[in-house]
Amino acid sequence: MDKSKVVFLKKPRLKDAILIEGLPGMGYVGKLAAEHLVGELRAEKFAEMYSPYFPHYAYVEPGGLLRLARNEFYYANINGKSVVILVGDAQATSPEGHYEIARKILEVVKRLKIKQIFTLGGYATGRYSEEKPKVIGASNHPEFVELLREHGVKIEDGAGPIIGASGLLLSLGKTRGVKGICLLGETHGVLVDHRSAQAVLEVLTDILGVKIDMHKLEELAKRTERIIHRIRKEWKARKPEETEEEISYIG
Amino acid sequence: MDKSKVVFLKKPRLKDAILIEGLPGMGYVGKLAAEHLVGELRAEKFAEMYSPYFPHYAYVEPGGLLRLARNEFYYANINGKSVVILVGDAQATSPEGHYEIARKILEVVKRLKIKQIFTLGGYATGRYSEEKPKVIGASNHPEFVELLREHGVKIEDGAGPIIGASGLLLSLGKTRGVKGICLLGETHGVLVDHRSAQAVLEVLTDILGVKIDMHKLEELAKRTERIIHRIRKEWKARKPEETEEEISYIG
Amino acid sequence: MDKSKVVFLKKPRLKDAILIEGLPGMGYVGKLAAEHLVGELRAEKFAEMYSPYFPHYAYVEPGGLLRLARNEFYYANINGKSVVILVGDAQATSPEGHYEIARKILEVVKRLKIKQIFTLGGYATGRYSEEKPKVIGASNHPEFVELLREHGVKIEDGAGPIIGASGLLLSLGKTRGVKGICLLGETHGVLVDHRSAQAVLEVLTDILGVKIDMHKLEELAKRTERIIHRIRKEWKARKPEETEEEISYIG
Amino acid sequence: MDKSKVVFLKKPRLKDAILIEGLPGMGYVGKLAAEHLVGELRAEKFAEMYSPYFPHYAYVEPGGLLRLARNEFYYANINGKSVVILVGDAQATSPEGHYEIARKILEVVKRLKIKQIFTLGGYATGRYSEEKPKVIGASNHPEFVELLREHGVKIEDGAGPIIGASGLLLSLGKTRGVKGICLLGETHGVLVDHRSAQAVLEVLTDILGVKIDMHKLEELAKRTERIIHRIRKEWKARKPEETEEEISYIG
Repeated sequence: MDKSKVVFLKKPRLKDAILIEGLPGMGYVGKLAAEHLVGELRAEKFAEMYSPYFPHYAYVEPGGLLRLARNEFYYANINGKSVVILVGDAQATSPEGHYEIARKILEVVKRLKIKQIFTLGGYATGRYSEEKPKVIGASNHPEFVELLREHGVKIEDGAGPIIGASGLLLSLGKTRGVKGICLLGETHGVLVDHRSAQAVLEVLTDILGVKIDMHKLEELAKRTERIIHRIRKEWKARKPEETEEEISYIG
Repeated sequence: MDKSKVVFLKKPRLKDAILIEGLPGMGYVGKLAAEHLVGELRAEKFAEMYSPYFPHYAYVEPGGLLRLARNEFYYANINGKSVVILVGDAQATSPEGHYEIARKILEVVKRLKIKQIFTLGGYATGRYSEEKPKVIGASNHPEFVELLREHGVKIEDGAGPIIGASGLLLSLGKTRGVKGICLLGETHGVLVDHRSAQAVLEVLTDILGVKIDMHKLEELAKRTERIIHRIRKEWKARKPEETEEEISYIG
Repeated sequence: MDKSKVVFLKKPRLKDAILIEGLPGMGYVGKLAAEHLVGELRAEKFAEMYSPYFPHYAYVEPGGLLRLARNEFYYANINGKSVVILVGDAQATSPEGHYEIARKILEVVKRLKIKQIFTLGGYATGRYSEEKPKVIGASNHPEFVELLREHGVKIEDGAGPIIGASGLLLSLGKTRGVKGICLLGETHGVLVDHRSAQAVLEVLTDILGVKIDMHKLEELAKRTERIIHRIRKEWKARKPEETEEEISYIG
Repeated sequence: MDKSKVVFLKKPRLKDAILIEGLPGMGYVGKLAAEHLVGELRAEKFAEMYSPYFPHYAYVEPGGLLRLARNEFYYANINGKSVVILVGDAQATSPEGHYEIARKILEVVKRLKIKQIFTLGGYATGRYSEEKPKVIGASNHPEFVELLREHGVKIEDGAGPIIGASGLLLSLGKTRGVKGICLLGETHGVLVDHRSAQAVLEVLTDILGVKIDMHKLEELAKRTERIIHRIRKEWKARKPEETEEEISYIG
């Protein structure tokens, strides 16, 4: 069988690098947050990962060019430190694939001498609220749990399992001496959620002590909100008595 | 691919050890029973097993620390004999994974010179009854079937297959000369069932000739029963004619 | 991973042996037919096959003894020729598993110098009819298609694919120079169908030129029919206008 | 496990060969188009591919001969150039299988010194329209995107992923220096769609600069249309008010 494979496009010059992971998942929260970071930090791509455990799809880019499903590694240097950002089209399609790919990513982490990982994602509530989305945290090391508390991040006792790369990179990483934090933004679960991505990024940048312009995320979040408002209104006009339930259904 | 792997945390001093397995399954009967045993015997953890066939989840412990899905081996010495207890978060996610993990556990069994295995679980009836749950038994050796009969355990002729570790450890174990017993407590199937776990433990401790305090299981079972009673009552008040059917549905 | 494995219990003395396969499938037709043959020919078991591609179940035999899911090879000598019969609890749980197990069986076929394979099964119609079930045939060699025609077996043009061991043993066997026939009895699809098994056996024994007592199959078929008659009657009494549809549903 | 395997039946004499792929998928568009091409070009089969990742079925040919699921390579020479056509019963049954089989096909592509691949398929709209089906294109190389534009093929910006061989051959091929085009015909998704196959073939032959008789495809398309017309009429007669919705459902 074809093996998972990381292709380096260039050798990044890194210093005290951390890894920030944001792959597709609940509400696309992690992916949106990490991609926003790539854009704002003008991060540069230096590696691509391919795997037979990714979906058997070709992705079509604007302009009609197709390519394999892949994950991508970017890097940027801020305040004398390096940030490596992992984004991508997809996660693995089976449990074994998830373990294999997390192991592969951790090989890159080791090769780049990365000591800290920040994984970003969403946790589904099934409800759409107009309040600021909450962000909960977890870590694979007590020292980082402490850090979360210092930054006011809620530690959810008795939280459900964290599925996919956001969970595995930290739990598998722990067995390889890599410490880190997982930040999960509250989200509906079905809607693409820029607001939750922003909430997660605000916590992340607060912890990292960097400033990121959130303008683009805010714009996209507002667009989604306007759509939801319009749908709510239309439904209310049609079936006033059912509104509450249906709104919680669509978002 | 990452392989399944057993990590020894310490070398347990064992004498004539038996293995008691209680992993998640129907009604969580086996897991509840085995975990109660770990607590009451103050058993000590000596090994952990990890596998890419476990779910691709990170589990979050109270306090916000996350870790890989795993199975755990504990041991305790009672009456000059050793008891090894296998508990855990999860079972394998595919048939091949189940075979692979059972084989891995049997390697530990061999290494620890364990000659007898007791696997614990539940069998679903789809009904909730207030009578004492029945416990049925099966074995991989005629001598142990005899033992079951001596202790009044019902042998179900024409019983369905026993799924997962409780069945595979004994059936695969048979081909490696390890004898043992499977004890299955009657359970609804959907509810977490402390009463059935207690019933299974009572049979197990009777066979092993040891005494275990059941207080904590009893407390938890009563709590569940109070909840079910309240739900039944509320439903009866609302739709008296449908009560029977719905109760069998929820519990 | 554990590999599929054939364990020989004894070395059978065979002469010009043929293989008859009857594993669980549609209506259990093949399994019932092959097991009836094992009984009537007083065939002797000489090998067992185990595989991690079988379901992760332990089967419980009458008397409470549990064992791994397995396939079994029996043999008997009739009229100076040998018949090897393959029966079992289960088929593989994935496409790759099916190919692997068929390849394993064909290794046994080669080792025993078997040149002809007869695979037995059912094809689902979704209807229950009281007429004698039809038997259709297919083969991996023109010479055997001819043989089917000579014995009045219907060749279904444009038939759907033949799923599992009955199809794979012949199609994979063809690439290894093993010729054979597949016989499929018409069956409802949900009901265990002794009548269809008998119809398939009648064609098989006609082709092989042997006589088999069908008494036991007939008895079991009658029992099923009595049950269906009773259910039809009860339904007719309750909802006369819906009878036709429901009968085709249950049987 | 059995490996995927390509069996060469003869050594084709090829010159500047291109590959045209049409395997089963949405609306059978690619398969119908490629098979029509095989017929009209009187292409000759020169290789077969087998794989444990194909469905575990035996296919029964008219006349009752069964065989393994397979893909087939044909070739023909037109205007001094060679066309290799890939058709078959099935695609892989898992993501890993899809990657493995695409890799295997690309080995054949390399061995035959093929530099260009044309993959054919359908994209589902869920609606049945009587207008000429649209054909959209994508490519793995800017030069070929340009070619598509020159031939008036629509490039869909923001198109969904292209699933299976049609997408993987080009995206995996790109990493091996093989350029090509994917042509997807608009189709309902459930119906076997000769009209869409014809539309795709018209674009393909225009690009290749060859002429193909479409008579047979047209006949088959008309037959399907007559059936749909009849069903629409019958439904309209029965439930005039529901017609629109149901028609879009069936076709």
